[in-house]
Amino acid sequence: MTTLCIVGLGLMGASLAMAVRPHYERIVAVTRRDETARKAVSRGIVDVATTDLDMAIPSADLIVLAAPVRTIVEQLRTGLGSARVGAVVTDLGSTKREIMAAMDALPPGVGGIGSHPMCGKELSGLDAADEELYRGRPWVLTRGARTDETSFMTVKTLAENAGARTLELDADRHDALVAMVSHLPFSLASALITTVDSASLSDAAVWQIAAGGLRDTTRVAASDVAMMLDILLTNSDAILASVRDFQFNLDQFASLLERRDEAGLRSYIALAAAARRQLNPQ
Amino acid sequence: MTTLCIVGLGLMGASLAMAVRPHYERIVAVTRRDETARKAVSRGIVDVATTDLDMAIPSADLIVLAAPVRTIVEQLRTGLGSARVGAVVTDLGSTKREIMAAMDALPPGVGGIGSHPMCGKELSGLDAADEELYRGRPWVLTRGARTDETSFMTVKTLAENAGARTLELDADRHDALVAMVSHLPFSLASALITTVDSASLSDAAVWQIAAGGLRDTTRVAASDVAMMLDILLTNSDAILASVRDFQFNLDQFASLLERRDEAGLRSYIALAAAARRQLNPQ
Repeated sequence: MTTLCIVGLGLMGASLAMAVRPHYERIVAVTRRDETARKAVSRGIVDVATTDLDMAIPSADLIVLAAPVRTIVEQLRTGLGSARVGAVVTDLGSTKREIMAAMDALPPGVGGIGSHPMCGKELSGLDAADEELYRGRPWVLTRGARTDETSFMTVKTLAENAGARTLELDADRHDALVAMVSHLPFSLASALITTVDSASLSDAAVWQIAAGGLRDTTRVAASDVAMMLDILLTNSDAILASVRDFQFNLDQFASLLERRDEAGLRSYIALAAAARRQLNPQ
Repeated sequence: MTTLCIVGLGLMGASLAMAVRPHYERIVAVTRRDETARKAVSRGIVDVATTDLDMAIPSADLIVLAAPVRTIVEQLRTGLGSARVGAVVTDLGSTKREIMAAMDALPPGVGGIGSHPMCGKELSGLDAADEELYRGRPWVLTRGARTDETSFMTVKTLAENAGARTLELDADRHDALVAMVSHLPFSLASALITTVDSASLSDAAVWQIAAGGLRDTTRVAASDVAMMLDILLTNSDAILASVRDFQFNLDQFASLLERRDEAGLRSYIALAAAARRQLNPQ
């Protein structure tokens, strides 16, 4: 009998419970708040829910840490002392270097492998949970010192049970890639909406005429603040490198515009449009 | 009997024809290509279509120029000599200063008012036309030297027939506002996808793990190149001013990140998330 223990029932944890429900005999959840625990059980999302980590961990075969990155690091360091020998630990954290360092120091006999499903919404919490959240999405697996074939296959199967497609990346490469495709877009969206918000102080009509372009481009700026703060603080160097690459490209664009360089601008935006088309579906 | 003449059956012109079809006795279209003209008539989008501007203009009561900005300017300068006295001219152009300057020089007896419906898609052409494109969207009306109450009401009614909600802005204010809410997001999206594309040269896995965040943030980079080029070249100063405001805010963000300033970053992204929530619906 396999017991899956999900620590954290925010959007990611709760969606995972819903997505893999039929594949595990028993799903136990650990939540911070009593109310979330009660809600999850009464909605049938999990079998048992508790606010006490120490109650849930000893019986778990597979433990999934679903929280902001720094909370996961803390749980790996101090919360899993009662995990049984043979248990497998994974996480759904958005950056991997600091998590893998903590995972490598798990108690002896406990397997560990990092994971990062590349999905999300600008909504958070149990109420936003969606059993289709993982379907068709990339789910990164990151091996560490504690990753044996059992841990690897156990978590690969979890990802596949959720409908995701797995790929393997080491922690450094993962963090550099997500800085580029996820943390940089977030940083730009935040700076953009900040810019528009400042502009609204001199002309409030900006909000009236804002159309789909601004909505799309800033959507990720509404992401969960606690989650994003941990990402920024555990992947700062890679994000700063991406921001600098971006600034270089924006400066190129601005200097074409300053010179009214028609051929240069046409080429710049045509190449950008062609690159964007690689990102299908729209 | 009111004859509406739409010059240009790209996404905007064709969608407008579909949206207002029941409100006009006769809709005539002018297209560049024979094939588009035939298609528009055979699909019942317009009553008559021709590639000859001079054939269509003399009988028109309301003329709508639906093309990239610099084409509209050219049509206003040289293409409307045969418009009848009492006819009203408007346009669907994305910037307003250069268009209004050309509109102010229309032949005597012809009324003119600028307009800009704030909508669009990353698809273009007749095949992407959608009769719901304008519904609920802001439609800016810009008065000029040729705007009398008849022209104003004629074009306001056109916008309302398409389901849009109108607001009035002068050309300078319009161009500054759209630089901020539309041309700046486009510029950032283009520079972002250019940055990711460059990064893919050293690690092609960026495309594999690209998720919804990158898709949303770069969506507008796939906009029609000819349309965007005209926007960039007819609104350069306002766009450059917006880019500089943005660069200031991105630099602030980067320096918080460099210093790992947790309180500063939390406050920055929390304020950004709050500002983004003003842009509902998601």
